[in-house]
Amino acid sequence: MSTTRERIVSASTELFSRNGYAGTGIKAILAASDAPFGSLYHFFPGGKEALGAAAIRAGGTTYLRLVEEFYGAGADVVDATRQFFEGAAAMIEATDFADACPIATVALEVSSVSEPMREAAAEAFESWLAALRLRLHEAGIEPERAAELAIELFCALEGAFLLSRATRDNTPILVAGRAVTRSVEAAVRSAVPLTR
Amino acid sequence: MSTTRERIVSASTELFSRNGYAGTGIKAILAASDAPFGSLYHFFPGGKEALGAAAIRAGGTTYLRLVEEFYGAGADVVDATRQFFEGAAAMIEATDFADACPIATVALEVSSVSEPMREAAAEAFESWLAALRLRLHEAGIEPERAAELAIELFCALEGAFLLSRATRDNTPILVAGRAVTRSVEAAVRSAVPLTR
Repeated sequence: MSTTRERIVSASTELFSRNGYAGTGIKAILAASDAPFGSLYHFFPGGKEALGAAAIRAGGTTYLRLVEEFYGAGADVVDATRQFFEGAAAMIEATDFADACPIATVALEVSSVSEPMREAAAEAFESWLAALRLRLHEAGIEPERAAELAIELFCALEGAFLLSRATRDNTPILVAGRAVTRSVEAAVRSAVPLTR
Repeated sequence: MSTTRERIVSASTELFSRNGYAGTGIKAILAASDAPFGSLYHFFPGGKEALGAAAIRAGGTTYLRLVEEFYGAGADVVDATRQFFEGAAAMIEATDFADACPIATVALEVSSVSEPMREAAAEAFESWLAALRLRLHEAGIEPERAAELAIELFCALEGAFLLSRATRDNTPILVAGRAVTRSVEAAVRSAVPLTR
């Protein structure tokens, strides 16, 4: 069983990612998490902004686990990249183009207006990039190129999520995924696998 | 002199892109556009949602002109791509990481909740992709590859805008730009220029 606090955070992550931070009212969050009115300020004395930061961190952790599922230790990073984008394309279509990145909507909304939430988003994004860098480097790609490739992959996916949600078409995710997969393939081909 | 309607739309485009659609109140829009209270419903009987769609269309047109400035008729598409990303990186830094895509924030917020605004965003994005496709094709890249490359470029830039705003660092725009420039270069190299 999840606690009331966990339910509030989880409902917030979902509602914020679909409808935005400002567009999601406290009442909707409490209804979705089956929590009494006072509970929000009990668990989040900092109010909605503190809840926003917690929701971003929770979304970041969930997505990090997803990244780690695809890019497991010893995974073929070329296959992982192909499957990651194909999985994202399938997911967005299955959820009627609602579920894409759990953080992007809020991150764009708050980057210029809330430092605590901007920082939470930056930390979440950085945790995904770190996971990707690690696996790309383990595949023999030198650190500097692995860092660039991780950024390229992130940007391609996030941009494709935006275009796919707006056009209700998952083709951009597949197109972006093929391009990134080719880049990863080229980097792996010219890499020297690490000896262990 | 701009008309009251133009000032309202222009202020809305800027406020929505920085702070989101739901996060921007009517009062803030009227104050920024120096317009009397009644004027919003006079020009936009459909209310805030109609204004939102108009602001998205206006932002789309402004950015289309920017794309066309870089990718002019007969432009070297490799140079144009490099300069487009370098220009975007300079702009985001100069505006304290506020001004990036004029539409992305609102597009993510409303994609699942407002069809008129989602459609306005989809049309704006499609107009940019069409402009890019045209120039890439004129550079001798066959239509299917030109269409893919336009999507790759769009996704790389939008994803990089997100990461740069969240981390307050324009490096992702430069990294994504170098990757896309390499892809455009490779496509042009293997292309047969159109005879005129």
